[in-house]
Amino acid sequence: MTQPDPSPRAGAVLEIDLGAIVDNWRRLSRMAAPADCAAVVKANAYGLGATPVAQALLEAGCRLFFVAHLDEGSALRQAVGDGPEIAVLNGPLPGTAEEFVEHRLIPVLNEPGQIDEWQRTEASRTAGSSPANAAQTGRVPGRAILHVDTGMARLGLTGREFAALIDNPPPIFWRAVMSHLACADEAGHALNQSQRERFAAAAAQLPGVPASLAASSGIFLGARYHFDLVRPGAALYGVNPQPGQPNPMRQVVQLRGRILQVREIDGGESVGYGATHIMAMSGRVATVAVGYADGWLRSLSRRGCAFVGDTRVPLLGRVSMDLVAFDVSAVDPALARPGMTLELLGPNYGVDDAAAHAGTIGYEILTALGARHHRIYHPPATAATPE
Amino acid sequence: MTQPDPSPRAGAVLEIDLGAIVDNWRRLSRMAAPADCAAVVKANAYGLGATPVAQALLEAGCRLFFVAHLDEGSALRQAVGDGPEIAVLNGPLPGTAEEFVEHRLIPVLNEPGQIDEWQRTEASRTAGSSPANAAQTGRVPGRAILHVDTGMARLGLTGREFAALIDNPPPIFWRAVMSHLACADEAGHALNQSQRERFAAAAAQLPGVPASLAASSGIFLGARYHFDLVRPGAALYGVNPQPGQPNPMRQVVQLRGRILQVREIDGGESVGYGATHIMAMSGRVATVAVGYADGWLRSLSRRGCAFVGDTRVPLLGRVSMDLVAFDVSAVDPALARPGMTLELLGPNYGVDDAAAHAGTIGYEILTALGARHHRIYHPPATAATPE
Repeated sequence: MTQPDPSPRAGAVLEIDLGAIVDNWRRLSRMAAPADCAAVVKANAYGLGATPVAQALLEAGCRLFFVAHLDEGSALRQAVGDGPEIAVLNGPLPGTAEEFVEHRLIPVLNEPGQIDEWQRTEASRTAGSSPANAAQTGRVPGRAILHVDTGMARLGLTGREFAALIDNPPPIFWRAVMSHLACADEAGHALNQSQRERFAAAAAQLPGVPASLAASSGIFLGARYHFDLVRPGAALYGVNPQPGQPNPMRQVVQLRGRILQVREIDGGESVGYGATHIMAMSGRVATVAVGYADGWLRSLSRRGCAFVGDTRVPLLGRVSMDLVAFDVSAVDPALARPGMTLELLGPNYGVDDAAAHAGTIGYEILTALGARHHRIYHPPATAATPE
Repeated sequence: MTQPDPSPRAGAVLEIDLGAIVDNWRRLSRMAAPADCAAVVKANAYGLGATPVAQALLEAGCRLFFVAHLDEGSALRQAVGDGPEIAVLNGPLPGTAEEFVEHRLIPVLNEPGQIDEWQRTEASRTAGSSPANAAQTGRVPGRAILHVDTGMARLGLTGREFAALIDNPPPIFWRAVMSHLACADEAGHALNQSQRERFAAAAAQLPGVPASLAASSGIFLGARYHFDLVRPGAALYGVNPQPGQPNPMRQVVQLRGRILQVREIDGGESVGYGATHIMAMSGRVATVAVGYADGWLRSLSRRGCAFVGDTRVPLLGRVSMDLVAFDVSAVDPALARPGMTLELLGPNYGVDDAAAHAGTIGYEILTALGARHHRIYHPPATAATPE
């Protein structure tokens, strides 16, 4: 991850290691085998860029991608071509089912209205057309994924709704049946086992339909949680799937922030908005061209840090919209000058470390990564990582 | 702000009232007169779109815009043409001064290195060229803004550096001299008065150079803070410049989130990640297609709310990456169905209200507004709001 500075005018440089993402996917694939391993690239691949991430994973053998929104699905279809399957977690909103067909997206059907919506589209689409016609129009049979809720109470059929569906099955080809764990990052949580049992019972009602329960953390709960298909997201991008234990995933992102100014400050002077930080003694403060408008969350105020080489430099005062200040008194002045960069995320200070300081989770640190960062993608070293 | 739904597939629709932004700018201009009134459109106009915002303000008579980064400046130059002035708060990083000249951007010079950088560029540029040559190349004389620090300790010359500059003035045409208040949103804070006095003393050393101290909140500190030029940002976009007092600004944004699913939940069931919310009694929960990846900050978990008509609906459990749940038990079921939207930001729940629940400031609610929102811009009603 050392490369020449792409531009001296970048306020921050975000390096994304596609090779690490591919390695993480392969590792999770091996863990989950013989279950298949999809990849979740919703929210622009957790802020890292859905197109380059999906293209790298496609090259590595991934054949099923999950996004959240229809628009994400149609954009991803453009990026990865016709080969892989793309599933849309939010499912079809009223009036949008035809767009799923057009872009060959697999809707996740979360509630009875979405099932009705999909049936109506399927019915109207196939009413006057033979399979040969379908082939001519470039449309493939419209498969769907059924989402059953087992304790998340967010999306998915309730137990009653699922029972009604089993009693009166709609003419839909189910690509899979899925559910989502609420507490997979707490291995000992009682809800995991009860969700697994509820899901196994539901899946048994749909013999022959591939079953999918585990996302990143769920993969680490053991083989009984893998079923036929796993759907990692966060772990691909380096977030620790097992909080409190060593992170088994490779780190993916490095963010370096540019120093605009280094200032000698006397003891007793205040720094930043609200004058919340008073310098205890004289020292040097570096102002860096990154702020909460870049996703450097304001909740990092007075708590975050950065690194210059191996030296930890504390964040001073409040994060501003476009600027943040660090105490670089302990750093060799030759290593902290205007135009130089310091490590905001990287080997010394990972996504989960920043999340802990911000009172959130690594996922939000990633999805908040700002549009102003200059991005460098490091391609996978294809020769060095044979499948 | 009522308009047909632009797309049934939008997970959220963000409406931006350019007329309100223009009205806010005119109001601040009147307050600050005879001082000039610029507009701060950094960070993509606080998340609302620098191009449409600046174009509307240009039409209303604004002639000076502030951005933070060089890249923002060059993009804005494309959007607004050659007429208005554009100042770049971060100033020239080493090696970038020529780009300022190329895009006719006014650098804010924050520290001695930036002053040197600008001088060198100026010197090399004018060495072999007469004013006639400059006109032929389309370049205008390179003016700069001098930033002096008066107590923010973030960017700007220290007192010692400023004294050295006055003793040995560089051959730079100063468009303005500026400073920034650290505590302007606390009218009674002692630092305001001391910063004002320090700034007035500095500005007096540069006779004839326009002086600028106040941003949004500073304008409300009174005429003694206005000097020659004010630089409002947040107040243009509806953030209250006087926290704790009635907001004098027009509201600018409305965000409506789409309901994906409405679920009947029994008492005792948990909702969302970590099962942090347990339903006290049976009720109905609406899952909405907005999450922290859309800037609906995760710190709103268990604290935020939304509105269905005039009914407040509490946010349940944790905000997910792409989803958030609200308790709609108190709402007529006909008004909360999949495909319908509810108010996430608007007349009932403003930017500052959401900020209070999230433990942050309205500025961050704005800059976090997500890329997946479908955006509708309401143009100013030019006839109805004569200058």
